[in-house]
Amino acid sequence: MSTVAERAAEAKEASKRMAWASASLKNEALLAMAGLLGDKKAEILAANEIDLEILQKKEGYSRAYYDRLKLTEARIEDMMEGLRQLAALPDPVGEVTGMWVRPNGLQVGQVRVPMGVVGIIYEARPNVTVDAAGLALKAGNAVVLRGSSEAINSNKALVAVLRQAVESVGLPGSAVTLIEDTERAAVVEMMRLNKYLDVLIPRGGASLIQSVVENASVPVIETGVGNCHTFVDESADLKMAGEIAFNAKTHRPGVCNAMETLLVHSAVADKFLPGMLESFIAAGVEVRGCARVQALDSRVKAAEEDDWYEEYLDLILAVKVVDSLEEAVAHIGKYGSGHSEAIVTSLYGNAREFQARVDAAAVYVNASTRFTDGFEFGLGAEMGISTQKLHVRGPMGLVALTSTKFVINGDGQIR
Amino acid sequence: MSTVAERAAEAKEASKRMAWASASLKNEALLAMAGLLGDKKAEILAANEIDLEILQKKEGYSRAYYDRLKLTEARIEDMMEGLRQLAALPDPVGEVTGMWVRPNGLQVGQVRVPMGVVGIIYEARPNVTVDAAGLALKAGNAVVLRGSSEAINSNKALVAVLRQAVESVGLPGSAVTLIEDTERAAVVEMMRLNKYLDVLIPRGGASLIQSVVENASVPVIETGVGNCHTFVDESADLKMAGEIAFNAKTHRPGVCNAMETLLVHSAVADKFLPGMLESFIAAGVEVRGCARVQALDSRVKAAEEDDWYEEYLDLILAVKVVDSLEEAVAHIGKYGSGHSEAIVTSLYGNAREFQARVDAAAVYVNASTRFTDGFEFGLGAEMGISTQKLHVRGPMGLVALTSTKFVINGDGQIR
Repeated sequence: MSTVAERAAEAKEASKRMAWASASLKNEALLAMAGLLGDKKAEILAANEIDLEILQKKEGYSRAYYDRLKLTEARIEDMMEGLRQLAALPDPVGEVTGMWVRPNGLQVGQVRVPMGVVGIIYEARPNVTVDAAGLALKAGNAVVLRGSSEAINSNKALVAVLRQAVESVGLPGSAVTLIEDTERAAVVEMMRLNKYLDVLIPRGGASLIQSVVENASVPVIETGVGNCHTFVDESADLKMAGEIAFNAKTHRPGVCNAMETLLVHSAVADKFLPGMLESFIAAGVEVRGCARVQALDSRVKAAEEDDWYEEYLDLILAVKVVDSLEEAVAHIGKYGSGHSEAIVTSLYGNAREFQARVDAAAVYVNASTRFTDGFEFGLGAEMGISTQKLHVRGPMGLVALTSTKFVINGDGQIR
Repeated sequence: MSTVAERAAEAKEASKRMAWASASLKNEALLAMAGLLGDKKAEILAANEIDLEILQKKEGYSRAYYDRLKLTEARIEDMMEGLRQLAALPDPVGEVTGMWVRPNGLQVGQVRVPMGVVGIIYEARPNVTVDAAGLALKAGNAVVLRGSSEAINSNKALVAVLRQAVESVGLPGSAVTLIEDTERAAVVEMMRLNKYLDVLIPRGGASLIQSVVENASVPVIETGVGNCHTFVDESADLKMAGEIAFNAKTHRPGVCNAMETLLVHSAVADKFLPGMLESFIAAGVEVRGCARVQALDSRVKAAEEDDWYEEYLDLILAVKVVDSLEEAVAHIGKYGSGHSEAIVTSLYGNAREFQARVDAAAVYVNASTRFTDGFEFGLGAEMGISTQKLHVRGPMGLVALTSTKFVINGDGQIR
């Protein structure tokens, strides 16, 4: 057996114990993890320093990448706080989601159970190591982590701490398993370990996610691209529309729930857009518009066909004037990525139609798309935002890391 | 664009209309399908006759395969009855599975929506064409069907009827799309059409399912192998245990929820097994046992290690004596396929422990594993039995063919 398969097999074995760990024992483990991270801050920062030094010797590393890789006392404290918040959340495992009696007297119920072994493939940020392990454990799973090779020393140090904490409460350390093999082949092997992994969640850029979706035989939860739209209809409160659009674009442009395209109904374009464009441009936003938008402001560049597909993740915005709700819905259907879409309207019928017709993980009326987030939705914690339709769609809370089983209670029934 | 991709793109387009079809319109379509199948029986049987004639000219075709391929008036009537029953079921689409208000006043809800386009890859039985199309449509989806090349004429005739019926109520015919290309390459292409297909369900033998799981980039629901166990513990009502075990093995040995291994606690083995083995052997069951079982009846063959893994789907049974519930659970954990597992017991603690510790889609106390079935569980209809943990586990009813979306109602909230 290869090293990767061996590690995954250990995690599978650990998952059997995790599956029936009580909520209080799992919470003890989470608090122990937080406590030990605090005690071992110096060792963790020293290991991270090694990663940072190696990175700096590489040609062409970017400042942004360095920042993502870097740990600080404050970042470790954030991880600790995240674990403590997880401990305070209700345990999803054991919830009976339904139970009924059949005509023959059989009692049939459905119970939430852990997924088993959750595999995570991720990039630079070492905090994912702790966040993902905490979420997986809280939901009764074991986790197999494969971070980037650049973060290997940080991840080894973090996982050593997490395992020690898990073992300190009597649970198996292999419930947190790190794949230390930094070769690309190790990731490829991990993607095909159906025998040991129940689900694989890639967290990172589009190319990582694409590679996992294409190559994995283990079931994947795709966390994805957000090409999000806001549609200002003919009845919109234009002050509200301006605030929502400005927030959706500029509050944090680098994240997946930021707006990338603004659609404006032609009936209000002349009244709404000049001031709106002024605000965006004043805030440093580059605006790329259709001809009708360009006609309103000479600073607007021409949007190419590709712009409508683009997830800029930056202070760039595509703007288009449309003549109907129908056209807005069709535009979103064609170019959108099914993440978060919003309408600003004062018409009941338009609100209902937009929410019914737009096919996306989150469809808003009169609010900023920036709310698509596990904490903001009240799910308590988040493992990413799913843009697939299977299993979970939108922000993934703890329930996304569980499965169900049927329990059937009889008194001798046969067919 | 290839023909396969073109067909799938048409289905995707049709799925947009299907998604907001009202329950009553979808039910009309189902009833129209049933009605037209009745009107066109002669044409369908004639097309099926062509498939049967071609099959008979092939060397080494099996009688069983011929039977699966063959349509009769009665089989067509069964399909019609299935469609009528579907029409009578409640529509899963639009159900609000939860709705809550956040501290900032945002109302966040989760609504059941159709999956979109459901791809089905299946083998000989032409009735799958009608059953799968009916289920997919009822849940508001379009369906892309790829049956076996041996059934191509039957499937073409059936799909022509279904499309005509769908169009007769004003819904798009492409909601039922058949991939007529019988080359293997067409299946491979279908497995990678992430752009058009939202989920892929293979229905057929183990090798088909394995191939889809390994090669598909489209999310797959795995319907799988059932290596099911019944454990008779030391406290079992032995009469009940005998009835349950006999039913689980002999009622329909060729299906996935039939028992393949019987585990008996050593404390009751001497009392329970001699009569039980007698009954099985009298019913034509070949028994393969561990040494302790062989010692009780000279007609019992020695079970090899492979026998514990085997899904016989036949009148063959593996029998093992174990010394504890712990050993039974460990045996099931090692050799089981996570389908259906049963304990026969009179002890509350054993019932609870078995149901908690055994990791399978359906875990029974005091009933035959044969009940693992959508109809028997009261789900109303069934698309197969999922043995994976993602999205759906166990019998798949209409809900398995749906996804959810978040709907968020605000009054100007920004972050």
